[in-house]
Amino acid sequence: MIPSSFIQSLGSTAECIHCELSTLETYAGDKWFARSLPEAVALPHNEEEVSAILKAAHAYGIPVTPRGAGMGYVGGCVPVCGGIVLSTERMNRILEVNPADGVVVVEPGVITADLQAACEQLGWFYPPDPASRKDSSIGGNIATNAGGPRCLKYGVTRSYVLGLRVVLADGRTLIAGGRTHKNKQGFDLAGLFCGSEGMLGIITQATLRIIPAPQARMALHASFPAFELAASAVQRVLQAGHLPCALEIADAYTLTAARKHLRTNVLPADAQGHLIVEIDGRRDALRSELKEIASLLRENSGDSTVYPAYTEEEVERIWELRRGFSESLKATGLTKLNEDIVVPRSQLVNFVNFCASLRTESGIPIACFGHAGDGNIHTNIMVPRDENGNERRADAEALLPRVFDFVLSHGGAITGEHGIGIAKAPWFPQAVGTTSLSVHAALKSALDPTGILNQGKIMGSRQI
Amino acid sequence: MIPSSFIQSLGSTAECIHCELSTLETYAGDKWFARSLPEAVALPHNEEEVSAILKAAHAYGIPVTPRGAGMGYVGGCVPVCGGIVLSTERMNRILEVNPADGVVVVEPGVITADLQAACEQLGWFYPPDPASRKDSSIGGNIATNAGGPRCLKYGVTRSYVLGLRVVLADGRTLIAGGRTHKNKQGFDLAGLFCGSEGMLGIITQATLRIIPAPQARMALHASFPAFELAASAVQRVLQAGHLPCALEIADAYTLTAARKHLRTNVLPADAQGHLIVEIDGRRDALRSELKEIASLLRENSGDSTVYPAYTEEEVERIWELRRGFSESLKATGLTKLNEDIVVPRSQLVNFVNFCASLRTESGIPIACFGHAGDGNIHTNIMVPRDENGNERRADAEALLPRVFDFVLSHGGAITGEHGIGIAKAPWFPQAVGTTSLSVHAALKSALDPTGILNQGKIMGSRQI
Repeated sequence: MIPSSFIQSLGSTAECIHCELSTLETYAGDKWFARSLPEAVALPHNEEEVSAILKAAHAYGIPVTPRGAGMGYVGGCVPVCGGIVLSTERMNRILEVNPADGVVVVEPGVITADLQAACEQLGWFYPPDPASRKDSSIGGNIATNAGGPRCLKYGVTRSYVLGLRVVLADGRTLIAGGRTHKNKQGFDLAGLFCGSEGMLGIITQATLRIIPAPQARMALHASFPAFELAASAVQRVLQAGHLPCALEIADAYTLTAARKHLRTNVLPADAQGHLIVEIDGRRDALRSELKEIASLLRENSGDSTVYPAYTEEEVERIWELRRGFSESLKATGLTKLNEDIVVPRSQLVNFVNFCASLRTESGIPIACFGHAGDGNIHTNIMVPRDENGNERRADAEALLPRVFDFVLSHGGAITGEHGIGIAKAPWFPQAVGTTSLSVHAALKSALDPTGILNQGKIMGSRQI
Repeated sequence: MIPSSFIQSLGSTAECIHCELSTLETYAGDKWFARSLPEAVALPHNEEEVSAILKAAHAYGIPVTPRGAGMGYVGGCVPVCGGIVLSTERMNRILEVNPADGVVVVEPGVITADLQAACEQLGWFYPPDPASRKDSSIGGNIATNAGGPRCLKYGVTRSYVLGLRVVLADGRTLIAGGRTHKNKQGFDLAGLFCGSEGMLGIITQATLRIIPAPQARMALHASFPAFELAASAVQRVLQAGHLPCALEIADAYTLTAARKHLRTNVLPADAQGHLIVEIDGRRDALRSELKEIASLLRENSGDSTVYPAYTEEEVERIWELRRGFSESLKATGLTKLNEDIVVPRSQLVNFVNFCASLRTESGIPIACFGHAGDGNIHTNIMVPRDENGNERRADAEALLPRVFDFVLSHGGAITGEHGIGIAKAPWFPQAVGTTSLSVHAALKSALDPTGILNQGKIMGSRQI
């Protein structure tokens, strides 16, 4: 229970605290299945209010679960210990787009796609492109160090974070990094908060690096009669000196679902693997580079069907197809357990073969597609239904340890984009080892000694 | 004094501990002027020996100062509290260059240029290019998060660090990050050690990201009748959508020294500013891009003299000229206080004008040149001599607070590449503020509770 004296101690900030059941329900979960009601929801308008709330919560020992736009896949903003959900959604102003300094300054609630649009209007570019970018916010992107297809060439969110204002667990405001493109003033504190999943502080302002927008982009997609041929084409493209902005792969199961749902004729009936390659840069160089890549793909398999896209419109159609893969899996009517594992690039084929064998053995469908260039494969375990139409969730979840065991024993990581949250917390100790675990605990305790921030995540045991 | 029981406790590892005076003298300093004799020098061959030494040092409370190649500019590896200097120079094997995974695995003592050569042989590329790369080692580059001209396009060292093995202060080995290009397993511990200046642990192995090498590079250099015109050309190039891999600027004082020393006719007598622009990418696009940039520079000032470089040989000659700037300043016979300040890019002109006014007021020469694209300007205060030929070092140093005050009050940072070490420690509190200072202390204490690692640096007061 949140004591009334806590609310009173907030003074005028109390106005941004909400306790109606309907509000509590709205802030109980994210895109993962777990839900847990908070006791209150805080919707602060500015850093001062965030600071006042944390200062009081720290004094009263009330758990605070930070929340961006609630688009996470691992229950990272689910208030498993009750207390307060603090959403930064009202702090959503783009404060500055400044090409002269190559920076934008934003509040954490700014939607990523809105920021990108504001930059594009001026001919500038904020590259990180999580699939959720039309709905997710910069604060959440930073807290999870969000990735996306373009990160192959451009790097993840952390590569663009120059400075942060962060309210610490006790209400103090930390300025980490700043406005300059280089900064060697002490430890990389801004980097430490990137990907810290709301465990170490609440981001109230971010200064992000922007770069001149590339002149143009072109793309192609190609189908292959064997997944191995698609995966080895990835290696050939890179080995030939190309650094595409995206290199996306899909497996046979995904393609079958897509053919069925999308009724497209660009995916041959026998396609077992599929690649999308996007390049960007100087317009006058792209056409010849695309032709080189197309011919590499064709050499790799006489049977591969290559569709180039020279115009922005044609490129967009390829990405529509890619988005269609995800929709097609949803259209099967089965729930997806979307695991964003990463393997070293050379292990792509091994990993997808492993998933195929797991599918054969268990009878449970597994669809793999994703960012082949950096080995980050979205592995969708499709929850089957029993004869009564009930989900066999436990059966699907029983495959998770086997997938993660394979990934970790092949030099991989159990999450490349989504984070640990509560969904992957049971495997976190195995993934990072005991020394890392104790270093995580030491850092958490150094910055949040009473442990009020996002209790039960990452190092917590799975509570839902 | 190091007790003999400490040495005995090391067992066979004791063989890598050296106490001869000549060795102690060799490891007393770096490229900065400060020197302090250690009581012993450890030259371990492997991680096990590093771990044994730290474990014992932790138990005995003996200070350990980690050292890379000793190429730092801020006294970062000067053993100001005596104890042991631990150099990683013998751990210098390139363990793996693996294009299929897009990684290299190296020991910390590998010289950066050697690693780059090994990658280039296979058509791959490790971009970070500190000026010291022929002498500095990867471990030191990571500990200082080294930069360089190419970081404008490619990012600093941290952008290439995927995984680290780190021996912590108490001798435990931490595995941070790993072999994958994305990794969201908990906090970004690998990132935390980047730039931590040996205060948090000793890096014993690094897995670094490599990328396909660009096909070719071209460059140009241009002189301008006013520094402002050179600086505004920087903005025009970026605003027109170009992202050069390097954008280097030099001021009038530097150019005058260069004309005198290099006897070159490519720098007009009235040149007040100079730019080098290097671009890389697809060969067939570079020539047209270089022409566009050349014409932008010419538009900016009818008087600017633009020299394009289309071949690798011609490009190298431009970089020779750039290296000549630094030599020319040395050839004045005056000691340089080389301060690697950073300002927001739009503040370049203000900053250089401020230095010019400081020069006029004090009579002490100040030369500014460096990485204009990211506002990282090497500010060389030239130590004057009195009538007896003695250095007036105190007079030169008296200008430092004024330079730093200007930088900090204009949104800048007092170091962009070199780090804090002991040289900039007096200004560290002012640069980062009290909350950051206490967070630094909390993190240091969490990872090195007895404070044996690199005592007296960053948060220490200047001791020399």
